Amino acid sequence: MGIQFQQVAIIGVGLIGGSLGLLLRQKGLADSIVGVGRRKENLEHAVTMGAIDRYVTQAKDALEKADLVVLATPVDTYETHVREWRGWLRPPTIVMDVGSVKGKLVEQLENHMPAGVRFVGTHPIAGREKSGVAYALPDLFQGARCIVTPTSRTDPKALAIVQHLWEAAGSTVMSMDPLTHDWVFGAVSHLPHVVSFSLMWALQEVQRQTSVPIDLLNFSGGGLKDTTRIAASSPEMWRDICLANDQNLIQMIDIYTQCLQHFKTLLETKDRCELEKELERAKETRDRLG
Amino acid sequence: MGIQFQQVAIIGVGLIGGSLGLLLRQKGLADSIVGVGRRKENLEHAVTMGAIDRYVTQAKDALEKADLVVLATPVDTYETHVREWRGWLRPPTIVMDVGSVKGKLVEQLENHMPAGVRFVGTHPIAGREKSGVAYALPDLFQGARCIVTPTSRTDPKALAIVQHLWEAAGSTVMSMDPLTHDWVFGAVSHLPHVVSFSLMWALQEVQRQTSVPIDLLNFSGGGLKDTTRIAASSPEMWRDICLANDQNLIQMIDIYTQCLQHFKTLLETKDRCELEKELERAKETRDRLG
Repeated sequence: MGIQFQQVAIIGVGLIGGSLGLLLRQKGLADSIVGVGRRKENLEHAVTMGAIDRYVTQAKDALEKADLVVLATPVDTYETHVREWRGWLRPPTIVMDVGSVKGKLVEQLENHMPAGVRFVGTHPIAGREKSGVAYALPDLFQGARCIVTPTSRTDPKALAIVQHLWEAAGSTVMSMDPLTHDWVFGAVSHLPHVVSFSLMWALQEVQRQTSVPIDLLNFSGGGLKDTTRIAASSPEMWRDICLANDQNLIQMIDIYTQCLQHFKTLLETKDRCELEKELERAKETRDRLG
Repeated sequence: MGIQFQQVAIIGVGLIGGSLGLLLRQKGLADSIVGVGRRKENLEHAVTMGAIDRYVTQAKDALEKADLVVLATPVDTYETHVREWRGWLRPPTIVMDVGSVKGKLVEQLENHMPAGVRFVGTHPIAGREKSGVAYALPDLFQGARCIVTPTSRTDPKALAIVQHLWEAAGSTVMSMDPLTHDWVFGAVSHLPHVVSFSLMWALQEVQRQTSVPIDLLNFSGGGLKDTTRIAASSPEMWRDICLANDQNLIQMIDIYTQCLQHFKTLLETKDRCELEKELERAKETRDRLG
C-alpha cells in the first residue's frame, strides 16, 4: 500500500514534528508540508532545515487543505487546539497525535472531532532527552517502536494509512488500548523519568548537607550520568506527561518507594545473603533488557 | 619520576585487577605480575589474556617477593585477606586497594599492616556494570578519575608511587579523606545504584500487578535502559559496597524518598507551574553533568 498526502499540517515543529517533516520530505510522501507554531524563529529554522516547506502562524490556512494533521505540541495543549480548530478540519482528513500519553485523552479528542474527521492516536517511541527542531532527524524513528491506540471509533482506513506512515519511517508498529498504553508507559517510561528527576533533586539536597567544600558533581561517573540522562528532558513536556498520567504515576511512585524501603531494610538488617539474592533478581531483569 | 616494580601481586583478577595487570604489562612497569585467586579457570584465562604472567592459589608465594600488592577482591574480603596474609608481607612493600568504599575500612586495614608495610587506599572510577577479567582492558582507566585516600599514617613516598602508577594508567588523581570519600561516592555512585536496582524491582512488581497479558519490558526504550544500566552490575560486589557504606546510604535513601514524595505531592496537587519549575531545576543540574 502506497501512501501519499497532498498537504500535511504539522502542529508544533519540535523534535518529533520536525523529524516527521524531514522523513515525509525525504521519502516524498507529501506534496506540501506546512508547519504551524508560535515561535517564528523556530519555524524559520525548520524551513531552513527542510523539515517543512513553509509555515503559518494561523492554523486555519494550514488545516483547511490538509489531508493529514499531526498534533506534535505538548500533550496538555491538544484539547485546546482541537477545540479551537475543529471548524477548519475538513473530512475525511486524518488527525494524528504523537504524544507520550493516551488514556482518557484519546476519548476527549475523539469527542471533539467533527463528523468524518478521523482521529488516530500514535506514540512513536523515540529518544527525547533532547528537544527542539534543531535535533530533528529523518531517521529518528528508524528501528523504534510506534504504538497506535485505536478504539471502537477509529476508522480502519485511517488507521491503516497511519500505520503505513510509521512503517515508512522505519518503525515497528504495535497496537494497544489507550488505557493500557498509559499503564505500560507509566511503568517503562514515565516512572523512570520521575526516578531520574528525583535523583537530581536528591543530589542537590545531599550537596546542601555536605560540610566539606566539594562539588559532588565533579565526581560523577558513567553510572550517575546514565541514571540521570533523561532528567535533561524538556520540563514543559514532562510536566504535561506526568500530569496527564498522574493516577498511574502516583500508584507507581508508591510501589517504587516500597522497593526503596525494602533496600533500606536489607541494609539495616545487614542481611548479606538476602541482599545479594535481591540484587541478583534485579540484575536478571536488567539483563533481559539487553 | 619513573616507577618500576619487581613483582606485583594482584589479589583478585577481575575487571579492575585484570585491567591493571594488562596496563602494567603494556607499559612495562613490572618485571613480574602474579595473580592470586580462587578460581583456576579464571586465572588461566587471565594468563592467556596477558593480564598476569602466572598465578598462584596460595597467596604466600606471591606476597613474599612482591613490592606492590593490589587488593582487587570485593571490599568485604579485604580485612580477612590482610589478617590472614600479614605475616607474608615484607617491608617496604606497598599494599594498595582499588575498592569503591573507603571510610573506616582504610583505618582497619592500616591497623593490620605489619611495621614498614605501606598501605595506600585508591578508588579508580572505572565502568563496572560488567565484571570479570574477560572485560578487562589496558585503557580502562584512561581519562578516568582515581581517588587516593591518604591518612596521617600514609607513607608519602608510597603515596607518590601509587599516584604515579594511576597517572601512568591515564587517570587524573585526586586526594580525599576516606570518610569524605564514602559520603561523596555514596551520593554520586552508590545511591544511583540503589535507585537503579530498586527500579528493576518496581517494574517486576508493576508487571505482577498488570492484568493484561503484556510483557512490560518489551516496551522499554532508551530511557529505561539508561536508568537501569548499572542494575546489571555484580550483585556480590554491590552487596559489599552497599553494606560497607550502609550508614551514608540509609541517610541518602531517606533524602531520595523525600524527593519522590515531593514529586508525588506535585502530582496530587496538580501544581503545573511548580512542577515545571522543579523539573527545570533537575534539568539544570543534569545539564551540568555533561
